[in-house]
Amino acid sequence: MNWLDEVPWNEHGMVAAIAQDAASGKVLTLAWMNREALAETAKTGQAVYWSRSRNKLWRKGEESGHVQKVRELRLDCDADAVLLQVEQAGGIACHTGHQRCFFRKLEGEKWVETDPVLKDPAAIYHKR
Amino acid sequence: MNWLDEVPWNEHGMVAAIAQDAASGKVLTLAWMNREALAETAKTGQAVYWSRSRNKLWRKGEESGHVQKVRELRLDCDADAVLLQVEQAGGIACHTGHQRCFFRKLEGEKWVETDPVLKDPAAIYHKR
Repeated sequence: MNWLDEVPWNEHGMVAAIAQDAASGKVLTLAWMNREALAETAKTGQAVYWSRSRNKLWRKGEESGHVQKVRELRLDCDADAVLLQVEQAGGIACHTGHQRCFFRKLEGEKWVETDPVLKDPAAIYHKR
Repeated sequence: MNWLDEVPWNEHGMVAAIAQDAASGKVLTLAWMNREALAETAKTGQAVYWSRSRNKLWRKGEESGHVQKVRELRLDCDADAVLLQVEQAGGIACHTGHQRCFFRKLEGEKWVETDPVLKDPAAIYHKR
């Protein structure tokens, strides 16, 4: 069986994709992949997702330069997810300029921003 | 604003929940939470998910004993996900008896099981 057929694609043909920093172990992002995105990720060794907002393939870093080199690709038991160990170019995974998308932590009954903005998003997307 | 209102619930009222082992940094599971599950998780300090197959609240470990004590709860920028740092009771997160659900790795064009079964699932669910 083709390895892509073993992925439990959901009703929209998607699988959740968790990117984890290979060096620090930090979980950087949760994004989505369709079959084409996962195939291209495996083939090129760089993370490719499906952008649900733009409705097209999203070659991570194509605008920001913050590509993710994939060191390892894992599949879970049944919860519709793959796990990527990545090397994060620029050390920034999030479009907000944070290292990771999970920059807010629950403290009591408030989400508190605990991580710094490493680079102004305007500088990431408009000044290259 | 109530912290629960800041969570970007999807069209099914769900948010993806990634559980990461607080000690090893390994990503254990991806599951789903509705508002009630997340509220109970925060209140009790133990992971509660929504079981889409059983269509009810799933207090992780209620049958297996493999509860997850939540040490930290994070929210991402916009991708509909929360991240839990957990202490995994029994060292087993997956119903298959593996430490984590991500026990298969892509090698070439095959998913290869790289992690051992730590406990027979039959023993987890029927002999307690």
